[in-house]
Amino acid sequence: MSLPLGFTARPAELLKAGAGFRLAGQPTNAAPGFSGKKDDGAAALADRAPVLAQLQEQLFAESRFGGRKSILLVLQAMDTAGKGGIVGHVVGAVDPQGVKLTAFKAPTDEEKSHDFLWRIRPAVPGPGVFGVFDRSHYEDVLIHRVHGWADDAELDRRYEAINDFEAELAAAGTTVVKIMLHLGADEQLERLRARLHDPTKYWKYSPGDLDERAFWPDYMDAYQKVFERTSSPDAPWYVVPADKKWYARLAVQEIVIEALASLNLQWPAGNFDVQHERARLKSA
Amino acid sequence: MSLPLGFTARPAELLKAGAGFRLAGQPTNAAPGFSGKKDDGAAALADRAPVLAQLQEQLFAESRFGGRKSILLVLQAMDTAGKGGIVGHVVGAVDPQGVKLTAFKAPTDEEKSHDFLWRIRPAVPGPGVFGVFDRSHYEDVLIHRVHGWADDAELDRRYEAINDFEAELAAAGTTVVKIMLHLGADEQLERLRARLHDPTKYWKYSPGDLDERAFWPDYMDAYQKVFERTSSPDAPWYVVPADKKWYARLAVQEIVIEALASLNLQWPAGNFDVQHERARLKSA
Repeated sequence: MSLPLGFTARPAELLKAGAGFRLAGQPTNAAPGFSGKKDDGAAALADRAPVLAQLQEQLFAESRFGGRKSILLVLQAMDTAGKGGIVGHVVGAVDPQGVKLTAFKAPTDEEKSHDFLWRIRPAVPGPGVFGVFDRSHYEDVLIHRVHGWADDAELDRRYEAINDFEAELAAAGTTVVKIMLHLGADEQLERLRARLHDPTKYWKYSPGDLDERAFWPDYMDAYQKVFERTSSPDAPWYVVPADKKWYARLAVQEIVIEALASLNLQWPAGNFDVQHERARLKSA
Repeated sequence: MSLPLGFTARPAELLKAGAGFRLAGQPTNAAPGFSGKKDDGAAALADRAPVLAQLQEQLFAESRFGGRKSILLVLQAMDTAGKGGIVGHVVGAVDPQGVKLTAFKAPTDEEKSHDFLWRIRPAVPGPGVFGVFDRSHYEDVLIHRVHGWADDAELDRRYEAINDFEAELAAAGTTVVKIMLHLGADEQLERLRARLHDPTKYWKYSPGDLDERAFWPDYMDAYQKVFERTSSPDAPWYVVPADKKWYARLAVQEIVIEALASLNLQWPAGNFDVQHERARLKSA
């Protein structure tokens, strides 16, 4: 695969959290694999958006004629890391009719009364659909680990349950792409400050964000464990430097494009006789 | 309200199907209220997209702090009229996290076993959400009337049920905007032909489209009846000329912008003490 303009390497290769991956020391303020600056990145994002849109349209089109493939993008990150921006600027470039987006908030009482995957399963994408999880089942091994809401044995059980679940998805035709937006702690502080100095952004600020921030090192440990236990060939994790919003969007877009391109999607032939229909049309 | 660049009148005023409206004779290949050509229209669409996006963000933001308002865009049209293009190019400009899109296909056996509104009710937008119906409960008084699947008494009952349902929505805070994309029969033929001469578009072609086309005048009668029976101040119908795709998108965008602007949306103040949080942040 030749590289798109501005790229010096494939983000999917550079950013994959494979065997031996260590989160500690990974840069947050870098743009791995891209040689340009912010403006170049914005231009590349716009330039590649139609490629993503067409791949998604092909995925959707195939499903109308029996195709079973789908894609699920899982987004995890510390607060303010830019999940919303990914949804708006990357997912937003594809036709909404093929997107199924679920934002997982703190579970309701009913959700808590079930296994942690209970609320996740109905949200998985059907054939042809680009599913997006804004937070996910990984909260149950992240915040739960950080705050000790689940003990080690239960966490072990959950990692395994997650692997089984994602293997099921893969077997059903769903390509699972898991992204951690890796934000620097200093950059988070800056973003929280910005929210508190712009009345059009107050609504995005929650005092709880600052509470969770105090557990930063614990969260990084919990993410490290997640990568070790749940990054698989079928459902790999990618750790995307997120201090530069423009880079994070561009990298996620490329990773998704590569995942869809690997499906070798085709335009369906249609289930009718083209010549016959053309003749019908002539006499219509 | 001053008019955006290129407009000579408000589409919402020009295109509303009010008392005495007659569909027969309405142009399909016009651009009422817009003085520019296709390129100007595309530029205006891009220019106004951030206005729509911000209004939707405010709607969403309000709902995080107790706001109950939402909007529901109902799209009805003959095949190929461009509903999908409206979804992609108008709805696609707003943040996907605030959108709930439902495409209503032919009802399943289970759906048929219930009242026609049974499958509609769960699809209405919650607070802060931009709901979109790609086809809707109006199919039950359009195709059902055309093919005689419901008799006059049943159709009467349905018009009333629809009015009651939409009045309920309005009372709950949902602004209902109903759009008929008004396509010319000749233009439809051209679009069907294009689908049959481009292998990347075969998947959009269905032989059934040509079958329904034979009932064109009956559909126009059924739409006329719909406007007479269900266009209300709370949930007006707009008939948008749709032969020029660029105009239909622009007009729908303006109608939705005007509907949202009329809600007088405000950025929420937040439910925390700004000074206190700024101080906490300083010592974080």
